[in-house]
Amino acid sequence: MDFILNYAPVIGALAGVLALLFAVVLAKRVTAVQPGNDRMVEIMNSIHEGAMAFLGRQYKTLVIFVVVMALVIVGAGMLTGGTEGGLNPLTAIPFLVGAVCSILAGNIGMRIATKANARTANAAQESGLNKALGVAFSGGAVMGMSVVGLGLLGLGIVILIFPGQSAIINGFSLGASSVALFGRVGGGIYTKAADVGADLVGKVEAGIPEDDPRNPAVIADNVGDNVGDVAGMGSDLFESYVGSVIAAIALGASLAIGDNGEGVIVPLLLAAWGIISSIIATFFVRTGEGKNPQKALDAGTYVATLLSIVGTFVICKFVLPDTFQNGMYTNTGVFIASVAGLVAGTLIGKITEYYTSADYKPVKDIAASCETGTATNIISGIATGMTSTALPIIVICCGIGAAYYFAGLYGIAIAAVGMLSTTGIVVAVDAYGPISDNAGGIAEMAGLEHHVREITDKLDAVGNTTAAIGKGFAIGSAALTALALFSAYTQAAGVTNIDIMNPMVVIGLFIGGMLPFLFSAMTMSAVGRSASHMITEVRRQFREIPGLMEGTAKPDYARCVDISTTAALREMVMPAVLAVVAPLFVGLVLGSEALGGLLAGSLVTGFLLAVMMSNAGGAWDNAKKYIEGGNFGGKGSDAHAAAVNGDTVGDPFKDTSGPSINILIKLMTIIALVFVPLFL
Amino acid sequence: MDFILNYAPVIGALAGVLALLFAVVLAKRVTAVQPGNDRMVEIMNSIHEGAMAFLGRQYKTLVIFVVVMALVIVGAGMLTGGTEGGLNPLTAIPFLVGAVCSILAGNIGMRIATKANARTANAAQESGLNKALGVAFSGGAVMGMSVVGLGLLGLGIVILIFPGQSAIINGFSLGASSVALFGRVGGGIYTKAADVGADLVGKVEAGIPEDDPRNPAVIADNVGDNVGDVAGMGSDLFESYVGSVIAAIALGASLAIGDNGEGVIVPLLLAAWGIISSIIATFFVRTGEGKNPQKALDAGTYVATLLSIVGTFVICKFVLPDTFQNGMYTNTGVFIASVAGLVAGTLIGKITEYYTSADYKPVKDIAASCETGTATNIISGIATGMTSTALPIIVICCGIGAAYYFAGLYGIAIAAVGMLSTTGIVVAVDAYGPISDNAGGIAEMAGLEHHVREITDKLDAVGNTTAAIGKGFAIGSAALTALALFSAYTQAAGVTNIDIMNPMVVIGLFIGGMLPFLFSAMTMSAVGRSASHMITEVRRQFREIPGLMEGTAKPDYARCVDISTTAALREMVMPAVLAVVAPLFVGLVLGSEALGGLLAGSLVTGFLLAVMMSNAGGAWDNAKKYIEGGNFGGKGSDAHAAAVNGDTVGDPFKDTSGPSINILIKLMTIIALVFVPLFL
Repeated sequence: MDFILNYAPVIGALAGVLALLFAVVLAKRVTAVQPGNDRMVEIMNSIHEGAMAFLGRQYKTLVIFVVVMALVIVGAGMLTGGTEGGLNPLTAIPFLVGAVCSILAGNIGMRIATKANARTANAAQESGLNKALGVAFSGGAVMGMSVVGLGLLGLGIVILIFPGQSAIINGFSLGASSVALFGRVGGGIYTKAADVGADLVGKVEAGIPEDDPRNPAVIADNVGDNVGDVAGMGSDLFESYVGSVIAAIALGASLAIGDNGEGVIVPLLLAAWGIISSIIATFFVRTGEGKNPQKALDAGTYVATLLSIVGTFVICKFVLPDTFQNGMYTNTGVFIASVAGLVAGTLIGKITEYYTSADYKPVKDIAASCETGTATNIISGIATGMTSTALPIIVICCGIGAAYYFAGLYGIAIAAVGMLSTTGIVVAVDAYGPISDNAGGIAEMAGLEHHVREITDKLDAVGNTTAAIGKGFAIGSAALTALALFSAYTQAAGVTNIDIMNPMVVIGLFIGGMLPFLFSAMTMSAVGRSASHMITEVRRQFREIPGLMEGTAKPDYARCVDISTTAALREMVMPAVLAVVAPLFVGLVLGSEALGGLLAGSLVTGFLLAVMMSNAGGAWDNAKKYIEGGNFGGKGSDAHAAAVNGDTVGDPFKDTSGPSINILIKLMTIIALVFVPLFL
Repeated sequence: MDFILNYAPVIGALAGVLALLFAVVLAKRVTAVQPGNDRMVEIMNSIHEGAMAFLGRQYKTLVIFVVVMALVIVGAGMLTGGTEGGLNPLTAIPFLVGAVCSILAGNIGMRIATKANARTANAAQESGLNKALGVAFSGGAVMGMSVVGLGLLGLGIVILIFPGQSAIINGFSLGASSVALFGRVGGGIYTKAADVGADLVGKVEAGIPEDDPRNPAVIADNVGDNVGDVAGMGSDLFESYVGSVIAAIALGASLAIGDNGEGVIVPLLLAAWGIISSIIATFFVRTGEGKNPQKALDAGTYVATLLSIVGTFVICKFVLPDTFQNGMYTNTGVFIASVAGLVAGTLIGKITEYYTSADYKPVKDIAASCETGTATNIISGIATGMTSTALPIIVICCGIGAAYYFAGLYGIAIAAVGMLSTTGIVVAVDAYGPISDNAGGIAEMAGLEHHVREITDKLDAVGNTTAAIGKGFAIGSAALTALALFSAYTQAAGVTNIDIMNPMVVIGLFIGGMLPFLFSAMTMSAVGRSASHMITEVRRQFREIPGLMEGTAKPDYARCVDISTTAALREMVMPAVLAVVAPLFVGLVLGSEALGGLLAGSLVTGFLLAVMMSNAGGAWDNAKKYIEGGNFGGKGSDAHAAAVNGDTVGDPFKDTSGPSINILIKLMTIIALVFVPLFL
């Protein structure tokens, strides 16, 4: 017991190392597979190089951002550090470590994911469904293991360097948030600019099919899948993952849970056990010919969840005192709080599936509304998105209520840790999606046989569902993490009360509530502007490169990749500035209570808007696919044209603006938490 | 001075009587004008009868609702009335008076508005622009004067019956809210079901122009303009008007502003003076041939605003003590708070105009985005709607901040009273819109000469702008009124603090924030369902009535009017239940602090969604008109087709869901205020 108390950060770090070692094993398993013929290797390399080029360019901007933020931390630290409760300039160190860890995780994940696509296609060709699933999932699991591995290793090291100094450790979370801002917002703009550009000129104007190698934007489009759904999603969940643990640590310390710092240790142990659960669970992801790969992925998730619950019970019972906070709460209560988070995460995923899958009524109704045209389809989709906010809100409220009832404020942070304990497998399942999608694209472009494309289509279809579920999970975890960080903020600010009856708090609520609207408008417009550059370039290539349409000349893929990259990095500047400056401005000018109002307001409307936009977008996408499956007139019908319009509107909803809000609400909260000494 | 203190309710009631007398004068002025030839009279009568039939049917449902609510009040009163601070069963009396006053105001206003349309067309034919403007504006002013007249007369009487018993008087506001629920939500569904039905089958399928008498839904469409923009808007502002005064009275009493109840009296006096200001201002609404009627309407609004400011200064200085609340605030501060409200209302109107008028960049950009198709138009419109929330939020926050800084919580309620002091002229200008719109329709249907239609088109174009501004004002005033009522609620609940750090409050915030999303989804879907019934009926008539398209047979207008009416009343049941039950449920189950969170959450997201939807809808509408004016290819171009889709999406946004949210946020707050004894 004493051993655990003393060495918990080491245990956490070791679990991180274990995850990284497992990632190496998985990566070798992926690269050991043959990538197929020359054409496939060529396409794979193009995608790989495009993706790595984007990351490289992103780092250049990111370095400036990170250095400026570090200087701000040091500067603010020097201004306030002399006084009691001031900002410690050393906070810049965990900040830098957090940023580097998140960058590394994204880099490793992308590197392998973009090597797994052709290999998945080739495995489908040579060995069939199960092997293809194995390659795609292993590729995704590298990202999953990198996220949790580097998250917990980095955090463990930082805690070892600054033992018991949770205000400094918070910097780690800020570093992760900064990278997530670039990964999610920049990545979201990139992927949709490329997608819309490729579709509008290629499919609509030139009349060539999806993933046709003659389309100059086709590589950019495939790169975008990785940039958005692998690196972007990974950085988002990396942020939630470390944020939830850090919030629980901060609250464990400030609420003095246990006499020997047990409350600080438990989040680390839960995260460490979550890694082991996820590793074990990966072995349950296997399927057979003719079976539904969805079942295999679900099996992995359920095993991880179950193992996590069992381990959580043991950890809570073994490590925590029977009762704490003057006997108000028990260690069983902490266990229940953790399970409440896990269950809430699973339920939100299921609800998301209900509203976005063509198997259920909402998407079928949207598809039916396409028969009366685009306008009714749009109205129907928006109404569905709005309606779909109700159940997740109720689930989150029940989760919060249960966690608080059984374990107080600490319980809310533990619920977030519980929800995120299976992050390893969640990210793996999610990153599997774009790999399968790319595999299908490569099979198409390389002209592989029909049965190969059938297998990759099957894998891809499952990827669409997992992507929607993953988005629901990302939003839910972002909300719970932000709430936990918010609680940590209020403790750190020493505000005893943020009273809605105080008009300054109301002003904060109003401004905070508005920010997700403004932020979404910015990211949505950014996609429009970036896509129009892409459209111009693709049109130019079709016009100026002789023999392109005939397939005798090759398009300039790199130019399109470059356009997406440049546009994404330029367009993310304004939203990023808004996310960083708004909380600082309100905190400095209106004070820490108004800032509390701002955080609460943005949390509420941010969660609602993110759910609404992601689900509306997912539902439109699948309504289109449902019609393409032969319903309501099928491809080429008027209903299909209406469905395509809905899908195009939904693209920036679900892949740019919606997920970007996750970052906004977490980043603003962590900025408040780190810079709180300035607002007092 | 003593005289004023003793007789303030009488002064208020007398000002109300004055407004009603002036309404009679205006009504006579309207009915004295000749309504034109037989065909015009026939159409006018159809619209008039359709509108009155809708009101009649609405009353039948409304009576049930009102009786049930009254019984609930009495029942709850008997349960809690015996104890100190319980709900007084007599609250049912002001409740009934409030409902009856609002019904009367709407009935009188509609009655005259639907007689002014043909007369406006005929005045345009016989005397030209100025006379036509005069008739249309006078028709609208009857509604404006009825709203403020019956509002202040009813309130004065109730105060005389229950002097000093502000908890009972709150019932008046609940009565007004109940009628507004039917007026705004039911009216909003009616108007768009008819509009969409008439447009989709008539304009798109049958290819006949707008307002063509062969279209079976044309009368229903014209009725809908009155039902939505005259009765609906009137009941909405009636609710805000009395709600703001009642909140100020309640706060004046509970905060004990002044030793002799001066704080209770000032709101009544401000409202009374506002009536006189509005009456004087109507005489400034006049124009000349070839001039822009917008200027005339603006002149009226500015005169009313200026007079109101001057009077407010005198009242504050003369009636209020120099300082109050232990010298924290001065009577000059109250004056500043009132002006802050007035200025905020004007600014929000101007901002709304900027985002929705084709004279400015946002609408031109949306029109340009139509060139790349429907999807880009939709994205552009939604992004514009979202962006347009930022400035109104900042204006409201500045208003709240200034009012609170200079006059405390009382100041916030006074700011709402200040904003609404010009309600008389605001409603007049707003109700002028549908009268002009109808006049244009009648001119078209009766085949009047081109120059007549030119005049009515000119009046109608101005009506579109005033409608958008009116919507902005309605939302802003709803938000400020809800906030004032919220303050009154917290005082009445005796909660000393609604702490966002308390998870129950967070749960309330989440649920409250979600309700406007769910409510909007419901009203939006309701329009879709109702419109589809209308479409089926119109198609049936075109198919089954021989000679209809040739103009030799008459369509069955009444059947379409009946379908809209039935659908509107059926479809409003679920949203109404949600609005009434949600606050009661949360208050009873989760307690008064969670209910406070719910009110704050719904206020924030409700305001944001309402602004977003109204402005997006208005912008799409005017982008379409801008293209029809010959830009980007004009009518019949692909850009125009895309613009029509945007306009169709925007219709339920701006005329149903957006404005209905005003009712939701006020109604839930007043329910909390009236039923607060149940939650303690």
